[in-house]
Amino acid sequence: MSVTPDEQPTDQPEAALADPEYREGVVELLGLLGCGEFLAFERLVSEAVLAPGLAQRLRISRIAAGELAHCEMLQARIAELGADPVALMAGFLPALEDFHAATTPADWLEGLVKAYVGDSIAKDFYREIAQHLDPATAQMVTEVCAELGQTDIVLEEVRGAIAADPRVAGRLALWGRRLLGEALTQAQNIAAEREPLVRLVLHGSYNAPADLPDLAGLTGRLTSAHVARLQALGLSA
Amino acid sequence: MSVTPDEQPTDQPEAALADPEYREGVVELLGLLGCGEFLAFERLVSEAVLAPGLAQRLRISRIAAGELAHCEMLQARIAELGADPVALMAGFLPALEDFHAATTPADWLEGLVKAYVGDSIAKDFYREIAQHLDPATAQMVTEVCAELGQTDIVLEEVRGAIAADPRVAGRLALWGRRLLGEALTQAQNIAAEREPLVRLVLHGSYNAPADLPDLAGLTGRLTSAHVARLQALGLSA
Repeated sequence: MSVTPDEQPTDQPEAALADPEYREGVVELLGLLGCGEFLAFERLVSEAVLAPGLAQRLRISRIAAGELAHCEMLQARIAELGADPVALMAGFLPALEDFHAATTPADWLEGLVKAYVGDSIAKDFYREIAQHLDPATAQMVTEVCAELGQTDIVLEEVRGAIAADPRVAGRLALWGRRLLGEALTQAQNIAAEREPLVRLVLHGSYNAPADLPDLAGLTGRLTSAHVARLQALGLSA
Repeated sequence: MSVTPDEQPTDQPEAALADPEYREGVVELLGLLGCGEFLAFERLVSEAVLAPGLAQRLRISRIAAGELAHCEMLQARIAELGADPVALMAGFLPALEDFHAATTPADWLEGLVKAYVGDSIAKDFYREIAQHLDPATAQMVTEVCAELGQTDIVLEEVRGAIAADPRVAGRLALWGRRLLGEALTQAQNIAAEREPLVRLVLHGSYNAPADLPDLAGLTGRLTSAHVARLQALGLSA
């Protein structure tokens, strides 16, 4: 983010947030991220009972505690912007809970792949969206993002399981495809109801037209990254 | 804890822990507490899906995060004492998971009462045991203890539910009795296998005789406190 001598960086956030439509989009975005992090926390912990041992459950619990800390940072920022964090996040619960209900892992490996895929798509999305945000909001999103991806446990365990039984790769590849499909379905459900959020995600402002080619572009970039990641993991997606 | 001029408090922990039997008891105690805190964390989070709304789930998640932090403190102390925290805690998993499996709440109110009762019995037990410990271990147990009891949410919600429907009190009173019964059953199972721990809990040393009257005294004190607490909550236990 370049700053010319005439523009004080401390003024930028105020200027951007003075636009009520931009502000509405940002608040919706923070609510979506906060609710997503909270459900990721709850689900990681609940699904860790599938782990083969206590060591893995302890590792998952630390990753989950990081998601909860993100959720609390996001709630604090929402409150700073004058919105009610709980009411705002609650609005995203139905779509996000539908996603989790449709992707309840059947075993530990599916749980690991879900944690990894979810974390990675979230990270890609955060990075993409951060480019469209005012500096203060972008910094918060980047901070949350930097702590994601502590999922080395996934890479080790999934590669080990495939080495032990190569048939596992096919099953998990299908699972990875299903996770992306369900995520895109719920993203569409959310987008249909949240115009300020969609305009913010696509253009960084409310006034620009929300044309479909851009949405397809974003979806395409997230999908390509997802496919490349699953391939790197030994899953031909 | 009184210290005479001849006894340096900094020497006491080393002296007590130099006794291998005392040390074994302390390590077992820390493993039990660590495993208990970890399962409390996992169960609080999993059972929070019973909550009527997101606000309550967020409150429960903060209480749970505190339990996880305790577990990590306890693990660090176990490692300092030269034992493997994960292996040690894993030894207590069967009895503690049996407790949780036998006390899966059917609804949000049962979940709240379980969180409150579990937290309170743990606090009473910690306070009782701290008197028998070397200062360094006692300080850690007291610190963990000081953060327990952040369960005001329980008092408010349970009293509100009883006011709205007095029949709730009878059902929750039965539930409270069952929680204590299952806890005592598992405490007996653990005690049967952990002689160093039992001697530490009852006497603070390995060499004193583990006579039954003392165990009955401890159980009696924990039970009386439990009954008084349920009565204060409006549940005639």
